[in-house]
Amino acid sequence: MAAPGEAPDPLPSWREGDAKKAVTGYVARVTDEDSPDFVPAPERIAVFDNDGTLWPENPVPFQLAFALDELQRRLPDEPEWKDDRFVQAALAGDLRALVADHHKGLLHIIELTGSGMTTVEFTDRVRAWLASAKHPLFERPYDQLAYQPMLELLAYLRAHGFKTFLVSGGGADFMRVFSERVYGVPPEQVVGSNARVVYELRESGPVLVKTMDDLFIDDKSAKPAGIHQFIGRRPIACFGNSDGDQAMLEYTTIDNPRPSLGLIVHHTDAEREYAYDQDAKSSGKLVTALEDAPKRGWLIVDMKNDWSEVFASPE
Amino acid sequence: MAAPGEAPDPLPSWREGDAKKAVTGYVARVTDEDSPDFVPAPERIAVFDNDGTLWPENPVPFQLAFALDELQRRLPDEPEWKDDRFVQAALAGDLRALVADHHKGLLHIIELTGSGMTTVEFTDRVRAWLASAKHPLFERPYDQLAYQPMLELLAYLRAHGFKTFLVSGGGADFMRVFSERVYGVPPEQVVGSNARVVYELRESGPVLVKTMDDLFIDDKSAKPAGIHQFIGRRPIACFGNSDGDQAMLEYTTIDNPRPSLGLIVHHTDAEREYAYDQDAKSSGKLVTALEDAPKRGWLIVDMKNDWSEVFASPE
Repeated sequence: MAAPGEAPDPLPSWREGDAKKAVTGYVARVTDEDSPDFVPAPERIAVFDNDGTLWPENPVPFQLAFALDELQRRLPDEPEWKDDRFVQAALAGDLRALVADHHKGLLHIIELTGSGMTTVEFTDRVRAWLASAKHPLFERPYDQLAYQPMLELLAYLRAHGFKTFLVSGGGADFMRVFSERVYGVPPEQVVGSNARVVYELRESGPVLVKTMDDLFIDDKSAKPAGIHQFIGRRPIACFGNSDGDQAMLEYTTIDNPRPSLGLIVHHTDAEREYAYDQDAKSSGKLVTALEDAPKRGWLIVDMKNDWSEVFASPE
Repeated sequence: MAAPGEAPDPLPSWREGDAKKAVTGYVARVTDEDSPDFVPAPERIAVFDNDGTLWPENPVPFQLAFALDELQRRLPDEPEWKDDRFVQAALAGDLRALVADHHKGLLHIIELTGSGMTTVEFTDRVRAWLASAKHPLFERPYDQLAYQPMLELLAYLRAHGFKTFLVSGGGADFMRVFSERVYGVPPEQVVGSNARVVYELRESGPVLVKTMDDLFIDDKSAKPAGIHQFIGRRPIACFGNSDGDQAMLEYTTIDNPRPSLGLIVHHTDAEREYAYDQDAKSSGKLVTALEDAPKRGWLIVDMKNDWSEVFASPE
C-alpha cells in the first residue's frame, strides 16, 4: 500500500526483489531525459511473446484448443472428415501423430479450421469459442487467464511511453480477436503467424478470404524477421519464455546501440500454474535461451518467487 | 489568415471549396461524441497510398530512380552486369524492356539493388541516395517533394485522433527510411511491398538479410490484403490516386459499418506538377477508379484547382 502522497506501486503483483528492481530501474533510466541511457519515445518498442509469456501454454497452446474444439463442433457438417487420419488423430487426442513429419498433421488441422473462410467469419468463430470454452484445469474462459503481473508490466511500459507489441507463434488473426481487450494491444501491434488473404468484392460487400499461401510461422529465427517486416524498427525490450524467443531476445539485446532489456519468464510454479523448462510437454521448451541468459544479461523471472499473484481474480 | 481568437486554418494549402469542405466536415462528424457518426479513436485508421498521392511518381516512381542510380553506382564493381540484358536495358533507359513479360526485368533490377544485403546496408544506401540525388524536373532532393496539402492533411487527421498509415506499392524498407521524418508516419505504420528477411547472428552482431522470397507486391487487390495482414482493422479513410488504389478504396468505403471517406488525388496540374490519368506514362493509371467514384461517393481532388500550393517552399 502506498503511503499518503506516494505514487501507488505500478507493479503490485511483483514481489520486491531483483527482477522487479531490474525492470523498474531500466524503465527509469531510458525515460529520464537527463540520463545518458535516455531513449526517445518513438524508439521505445517492447515486444512480448504470447503463449507462456502473457498467458499459459498448457496443457496445449490455447489456439490448438480452439482448433480441436472447432473440429468437434464442425464434425457433423463435414462427413469427409471421418476418413481424414489427422482429424481422427486430433479428435482422439493423439497430438504426437499431429506433430510428426514436421508438424504435417498440425498444419492440416490449422488449414481446416483457419482457412477457406473470410476473416470476419474466422473472427466470429474465435469470439464464440472464447465466450463458451473453458480451460480444463483453471475452469475459466481462456481469455481470463492472462498473467496479472504481465498485464501490469504492459500497462506500466505504456505509461512510460513504450509501444507494446505481441510477437508470437500464435496466429495474428486469432490473437487480434482479444489482444486489445485483454492486453491493451491494438490489432495493428500484433505480429503473429500469418498467411495471405485474398480480396473479393462480393454482392454482399468486400471480403478477405483466408488461405495458407506463403505461410509465415512466427517462431524462432522468424521472430526477428517478423519484427522487421511488421514493425521495421529494432525493439529495446523483449519478453519471452522459451527457446522460440531466443532469436528475438538476441536481436533486441546484442549490440543494440540503445540500452535494452531482455526478460525470460521461467515457469517454476507447479502449484499456481505449471513448472517446466527442458521437459516442456507441448510448447515452451526452455534450454538454450536459459543457458545463454547470464552471458546475454537476460533477466530470469521466477514465477513462483517473483510473482505474488499469477492470475487476476475471476471476473 | 485566421481572425483574432479564431483557430488557424489546419489546411492552408487547400483552397476553399467542395473538397476541403467534405474532408473537414467528415472529420468533424466522426470526432464529435454527440454525433451519430462518431467513431472511437482506436478505429480511426487512415491509409495513404504514397507514389502519386503523397509525392510525385513521374518521370518514374522514385524508388525506380533509386534502383537505376544504384545500378550506375555499383556498375564498376559488378563486371558480370555488362552481360545482363536487363541491367543494360535499365542503364539505356529502356523501361519498356523492363516491364515486358510481367515486369520480369523490373523484378530483376529490384532483386539486384534491394536484396542480398542486410537491412541496415539497404537503409544506408537509400539514405545516401536521398542525400545526393535530385529530381530531374524539380531539381530538389526527392524527399523534399512531398505534397504540402497532403502533409497538412496527415497532420490534421493525426491531430483528430487518426492513426495514419502508408499503404503503397513502394518497398516498405525503402519508405521506412524517410516516412517518419517526411510524413510523420513511423516505420511500424508503413505497409508496402516486401519479402522475407533472414536472421543471422554474426560475429558483428545480429543482422537481417534481405531476400526476394515470398515477395508481396502491395498493389491493387493486394492492398486490402496488406491492410488486413499488417493493420488487422478496416480503415475508415483512404487516400489514393490510381486504379491501383481502387481495391483499398472499396474495402474502406463499401458497406463499412463506420462512416468512411474515400479520396482520389487527380493529377490535373501540368504547370506545377503533372497532368495524367488514363494516359499515365509510368505508374498511376486512373480509369476505373475514376469511373466508379460517383457511384462510390469517392471525393475527387483536382490538384490544379483545389490546392493553392503543391510543394512546400524549398528547405
